[in-house]
Amino acid sequence: MRILTAELQAHAGERVQLAGWVHARRDLGRVSFVVLRDRAGLAQVVLDEPLELGPETVVEVEGLAVAAEQAPGGVELREPVFRVLAEAAQPTPVELRRPELREQLPTILDHAAVALRHPRRRAVFELAAAAMAGFRVALDARGFVEIASPKIVASATESGANVFALDYFGRPAYLAQSPQFYKQTMVGVFERVYEVGPVFRAEPHETARHLAEYVSLDAEVGFVSDHFDVMRFARDAVAGMVEGVRTRAAGAARLLGVELPAVPAELPWVHFADTGVDEPDLAPADERRLCEEHGELLFVTGYPAAKRPFYTHPEPERPEYTRSFDLLFRGQELVTGGQRLHRYADYVAALGGETGPYESYLEAFRYGMPPHGGFAIGLERFVGRLVGARNIRETTLFPRDRSRLLP
Amino acid sequence: MRILTAELQAHAGERVQLAGWVHARRDLGRVSFVVLRDRAGLAQVVLDEPLELGPETVVEVEGLAVAAEQAPGGVELREPVFRVLAEAAQPTPVELRRPELREQLPTILDHAAVALRHPRRRAVFELAAAAMAGFRVALDARGFVEIASPKIVASATESGANVFALDYFGRPAYLAQSPQFYKQTMVGVFERVYEVGPVFRAEPHETARHLAEYVSLDAEVGFVSDHFDVMRFARDAVAGMVEGVRTRAAGAARLLGVELPAVPAELPWVHFADTGVDEPDLAPADERRLCEEHGELLFVTGYPAAKRPFYTHPEPERPEYTRSFDLLFRGQELVTGGQRLHRYADYVAALGGETGPYESYLEAFRYGMPPHGGFAIGLERFVGRLVGARNIRETTLFPRDRSRLLP
Repeated sequence: MRILTAELQAHAGERVQLAGWVHARRDLGRVSFVVLRDRAGLAQVVLDEPLELGPETVVEVEGLAVAAEQAPGGVELREPVFRVLAEAAQPTPVELRRPELREQLPTILDHAAVALRHPRRRAVFELAAAAMAGFRVALDARGFVEIASPKIVASATESGANVFALDYFGRPAYLAQSPQFYKQTMVGVFERVYEVGPVFRAEPHETARHLAEYVSLDAEVGFVSDHFDVMRFARDAVAGMVEGVRTRAAGAARLLGVELPAVPAELPWVHFADTGVDEPDLAPADERRLCEEHGELLFVTGYPAAKRPFYTHPEPERPEYTRSFDLLFRGQELVTGGQRLHRYADYVAALGGETGPYESYLEAFRYGMPPHGGFAIGLERFVGRLVGARNIRETTLFPRDRSRLLP
Repeated sequence: MRILTAELQAHAGERVQLAGWVHARRDLGRVSFVVLRDRAGLAQVVLDEPLELGPETVVEVEGLAVAAEQAPGGVELREPVFRVLAEAAQPTPVELRRPELREQLPTILDHAAVALRHPRRRAVFELAAAAMAGFRVALDARGFVEIASPKIVASATESGANVFALDYFGRPAYLAQSPQFYKQTMVGVFERVYEVGPVFRAEPHETARHLAEYVSLDAEVGFVSDHFDVMRFARDAVAGMVEGVRTRAAGAARLLGVELPAVPAELPWVHFADTGVDEPDLAPADERRLCEEHGELLFVTGYPAAKRPFYTHPEPERPEYTRSFDLLFRGQELVTGGQRLHRYADYVAALGGETGPYESYLEAFRYGMPPHGGFAIGLERFVGRLVGARNIRETTLFPRDRSRLLP
């Protein structure tokens, strides 16, 4: 029976079987070591005579677990008997044995299939999985229902620009830029819904914070008074993601030196009109400055209507501003949300009567929709802020952008 | 403070506030009733004088909760004071007030935004959400890590046919027919991975069991001996989905009269060679017959190599058969899986040396991959079997097929 490297300590003095990859080798003349990697971590195997095992060879190894102070985890495997399950066909294009990968990001991404095996790369995506789980736990506890909305849609409704076109049985279709219209529709069904899934943006520019495909954690909730109700749920969702990392990926967070943010019950907020910004939107430098001034988690509310989509609810008293918000996290926009229009007549007016391509989307609003709002969280950005990534591609398994479609 | 209809009973004798949709009205001369629908259920409101509230009007209503034997739930709301939050702009295209929708499926799908509000339609997707949650719980408990793989891919690698083509910044790309290659690659990283996400098939035919886009529950696991190890995980995943429905969607299951299957620790299995079928694949009639003969959950193993993809591991002793399986559930294929090839040289041989379009996929196999396998479960099919759906579109929120791209 195979045990995991993390279980080795509990088996000191016993003969056990491990399985995994040859992560590193060291030959010290009389004695040599193989570091074995499995899904739980690393273990040191002591060989009395050198054995030809190339990096990434997959092995089963049986041996005696022996307490040894100098071994990682305090226990090493001696008197090993190896069985090779699969050999590596050639040397790896990135060197996995060092504490940190030394290759440049393009090389790491080109060879993601191997580079992701490095403990530090792998840990990044343990954080991502834990964050997704924490998001769901938080919203499940608040009565939300998970939905799966279609990614192939009939019209490029949300913004018109930056949309991928598709040949759909001989006619045009598009990849959904967000589940926006579907999650709103589903508020009419479940009142509270969320979706974790891919969204697609044909971003014409290559920046360190944009991708052509990313994971969006979306939620939408009915019967709200205004966007501050929505912000409370957004706060709860982010707190859930942080808690998910804390409880489900503690080892990965430790390995990467992640300092989790404190998420107080009430997050600070500042209205756009009080940010000192003249433009209709914040620039990256503004986001960094505001977080320095107000804290690592900061809501900015009331974005000018000019920069928010047509379905955004205006402020009743000064409609040049909206009932919208972004949540900044460590100097970068992490969450975007707001209250939406909910009356059919308001949508017709907001579209200037041109409801044509939106008719299908508007059906829910013809038949009674409560005041509602929602938000979207970028998974890769959340993890990126946690690990201090300089480029969003560092926290994306297989990134997609203008020039990258492989692996 | 708003309470939910399901909480009304606990508040008998108190003045409370409900909110929701006008689901139905009955005028009995001297007295009239409004049935209010919220996310938790229905409640009866007694009006002393008739009030003009059209179906699907969104209201808040304050009143006195009074025990009343004849009311659903045993408590009704009296002395109501209504506040209209949003009016319905026109009569609904489907009648929601009846215990079952009477409209035909195309009408129900055309007007999904409204039809999904019906308690029985809504319940179907509560089952789906619970099944997804149960899948994750089962695999999380077994050390699997959730991944999010890209849906835009560079080549139509898995089958070549039935793939959607895309304009990707001026060059061709495709929608992933499955996360197959990515989940295998990630076995090299995490050993055990799963993904819940959309997959895309340009199915040229319209059948009652195929869609152009559906939700696939995918898993892949390393260090297996053969496909029977994989089948045990597939069994556990399905058991988790059933348990998810049992614990998280009991009300919805009751409303729909769902009888959950028993999932014994060991599911029965039959080898393809012993099914009495001459063709290289099972026909729908064969699947129905086999379930009648062997049970509602039945593995068929060893499918002929001719009908399985190139990455399928052959049976060593008779390579015309493979280490593959389907899990049939109530007469229909629910799960497909098997052991995969894991050696680079075996892939090169299986592809007849033509590795060109697969080079990126094969990178993981160049650098040591353990024996592994996995499976995929169709979410809509699982729910379809539970509720006895005749058409897969009944258990899909917004179906996509050759002729349907809206809503």
